[in-house]
This record gives sequence, C-alpha cells and structure tokens, in this order.
Amino acid sequence: MTGLAQKVAEITVLRDPAAANAAPPVFDDAFQAKFAELIAWRRDVRRFTTDPVDPELIEQLLDLAQLAPSVGNSQPWRWIGVDSAATRAKVRANFLRCNEVAASAYQGERAALYAKLKLEGIDVAPRQFALFCDRATAQGLGVGRQTMPEALDYSVVAMIETFWLAARTLGLGVGWVSILDPHQISQDLEVPAEWKFIAYLCVGWPVEQHIDPELVRHHWQDRTSAGRVVLSR
Amino acid sequence: MTGLAQKVAEITVLRDPAAANAAPPVFDDAFQAKFAELIAWRRDVRRFTTDPVDPELIEQLLDLAQLAPSVGNSQPWRWIGVDSAATRAKVRANFLRCNEVAASAYQGERAALYAKLKLEGIDVAPRQFALFCDRATAQGLGVGRQTMPEALDYSVVAMIETFWLAARTLGLGVGWVSILDPHQISQDLEVPAEWKFIAYLCVGWPVEQHIDPELVRHHWQDRTSAGRVVLSR
Repeated sequence: MTGLAQKVAEITVLRDPAAANAAPPVFDDAFQAKFAELIAWRRDVRRFTTDPVDPELIEQLLDLAQLAPSVGNSQPWRWIGVDSAATRAKVRANFLRCNEVAASAYQGERAALYAKLKLEGIDVAPRQFALFCDRATAQGLGVGRQTMPEALDYSVVAMIETFWLAARTLGLGVGWVSILDPHQISQDLEVPAEWKFIAYLCVGWPVEQHIDPELVRHHWQDRTSAGRVVLSR
Repeated sequence: MTGLAQKVAEITVLRDPAAANAAPPVFDDAFQAKFAELIAWRRDVRRFTTDPVDPELIEQLLDLAQLAPSVGNSQPWRWIGVDSAATRAKVRANFLRCNEVAASAYQGERAALYAKLKLEGIDVAPRQFALFCDRATAQGLGVGRQTMPEALDYSVVAMIETFWLAARTLGLGVGWVSILDPHQISQDLEVPAEWKFIAYLCVGWPVEQHIDPELVRHHWQDRTSAGRVVLSR
C-alpha cells in the first residue's frame, strides 16, 4: 500500500461526522519545497512503457480525486475506462482524422516540426479514460451555476489536475489528449446525451522524466511571461 | 522566504537549458501521505480574517502557477487584481444581483437554508483576482485546440487548481465565486473583448480550518459516489 493509499484510508475515517474534530495538518517548508517540485515535474506524458499499472493504484487515485473542488459540491465528473481494443481503435482513428486537419493549418518548417511532435500515447498507454461532465446532475441543487453553467465543466478540469498531480506522486504519467472530435467520441463511447466530453487521459509509466515541458523540449513553444502579469483595477 | 519560494527559485535555475540534466525528484510515502492531506484539507474559503497577506507570498504563488499545464503550452491565463474599493463594490453588487435571482429558484426549507449559506468573501478577503482566458493568444500556435477551443479555458482552470493547492500549503485560503454575470464583470473590469471570464478568486487567511466542505458542513450537499463509478467501454 502506498503512502497515498494509507492516508486516503485515514481521511475517509476523518470524514465521518463522528470523527470531525481532527487537527488541521501543517505543511512545513520541506513539504512546500517538495510540492513545488511536484508542480515543476508534472508532465503531459505521451511516451509510455508497455508495463501494466496495478489496478489498485488507479483505485487509490480515484478515491483521492473525489476530494477535488466542484461547484456546489456537485462532483459532476463521469469516468469511462476505454479498455477494449475496438474502442481504443475508434479513439485513435478519431485522433488521426482530427490531427490530419490540424496539421494542414501549418506551412513550411512549422508543418515539418508539427509532423514530428508526439501528441498522444493512445497506442501504448495501459490505462485510458474519457472524462465527461454530467451537465444534468441534480447534485449540488444548482448552486453556483445559474449564471455560469460552465462552472460544472470547470469542476471536472479541477478534478483532472488533482488526479494528475496525485498520479505524479506515484510516478505515474498522465497525458491529456484534446485533438479529438468531441461529438464523435461521445457517440463512440455511447454516453448519455447530457454528458459533455471534457478530456481524454492516457495513464501509464513514463519512458523518461524531465523538467522541461514536451513542447518546450521539442522547440514548439517556450514558456513566456504573458500570463505572469497582474493588471490592477 | 518560504520553502515554496526557495524551491521555485531553484527550479527557475533548473529550467535554464544549460542546467537541464537535473535528477528527477522522488516522492516518498511520507510526501504522498501529506499530499493526500493537502487535497483533503483544501477548502473553498468564504470566511477570511482582515489580516493582510504579504504581497511576496502572492508573487511566489504566481511564479509557481506559471508551471501549470496548458494546451500547447499556451499559458492563456490573464490575471486582474481587483484592488480598488470602487471596483470591489461593483463586483459585490454583481454578486448580490445574481444571488438574489439564484435564491428565488428555491422554495420552503431549501430557500431558508440557501439564504443562510455564505457563498463569497468579497467584503473581507484582502486579495481578490478575476481570472480570464485570452481566447486570442497566439502562444502555442493553436496546437490542441482546433476541435476543442474550450481546452484554452480548461488550461486556466487547471492553473487555478494548482494555485489553490499551493496557497493552501502556505495556509492561505482561496474561495472561487461563480455567482456572477460574466459579461458584467468583463465590462466593469475593462478587459479586451477576446478575454473570457473564468473565475473570481478571493484570497486571504481563513477564519477556520476543517476537513468537511462548506456545503457539507452546512447541510446543503453531501458527497456522493456518483462520480466514483468507472464505466468500461
């Protein structure tokens, strides 16, 4: 059992109303420093080994992910495990079609560079999940989403980032594929009409670990300071 | 200087291509356990003390937040610090108008319970930020967002969750207000037309710490297992 799993088991007990007086944790300098490393060394992974992932690790991550923030405590994330070869082939075909169109938007050296980018690991990643938002969930009784119904979608994204970081603490890589036709994937996975497709995640053991993002490393897009500016009003 | 700041300063050096061969960190059982506690003890905070927040802490969090995932490494998040009393009054008025409409959707005991919920801390939180997505950014050269342009918005959300957790490691509380008219806030804050409003964040020192979410604690919505199910395809 990992440290993550042990703590999640304890936390589940703490969430019992009868045990609600737990002392708040202290996050000391050493933890803060390690947490910053976690953020820096998370990666959008596309190169996976073929090694299987212990299903128990995925269960632990799913348990923890339930504690992610959601508007009105609606927890609107819905998970589809994409497990069969037939379904994976459909998703991979979806990606290939969309990526061909995407590639045609670039010319010259950029087009050549785009063609060399590895943008997904659907052919190798041992676990794969499609994430949907249940736009029709009654949970939360509508709080916080009357003027901004998209807050439901955002809840799924905040959960994904939580899951992603937790996976990285276990050494597991996560890759987010967005080059997909959302209507096609909803149809192929036979989900209810009210479920909105949010993300496709590949999960597995990464071939390499590095601190620079894939698209920096392969000279597509460096980080900039545009999002670091804070305007004042 | 916090442990977070020290490590972020080191990481900035590591990101220099000349120093790119850093050894990957190991996240041991103790860290995994503490990380699970961080996830469990994050809260959507609405009750803040009036104590000021050292501006240096915010700078550290902003530095770290730049390392969040974004589609195509587009980093499309745009920060507006809502600092003046006049602008805060406009945001608060926006919330009050939207919340009055929202409240009218409930009847009887639910309406009475809704009226007692504390849903924002705009009147007290020492630091407040409106987060936008620059839908027109050229950064990333469009990768990953042709079929799903909303992936840009999702990048801002993943950054917010990263910021939120990092703030919690420092003991700082973050509260996400979504009961706002997004068009009105964009107008009041005078942002470019291409910026899409994503979230309003209140930041400050929390009055209380507890493991149960605000809406569970105040009997609005318990956690359920609906989002814990994984369907297989």
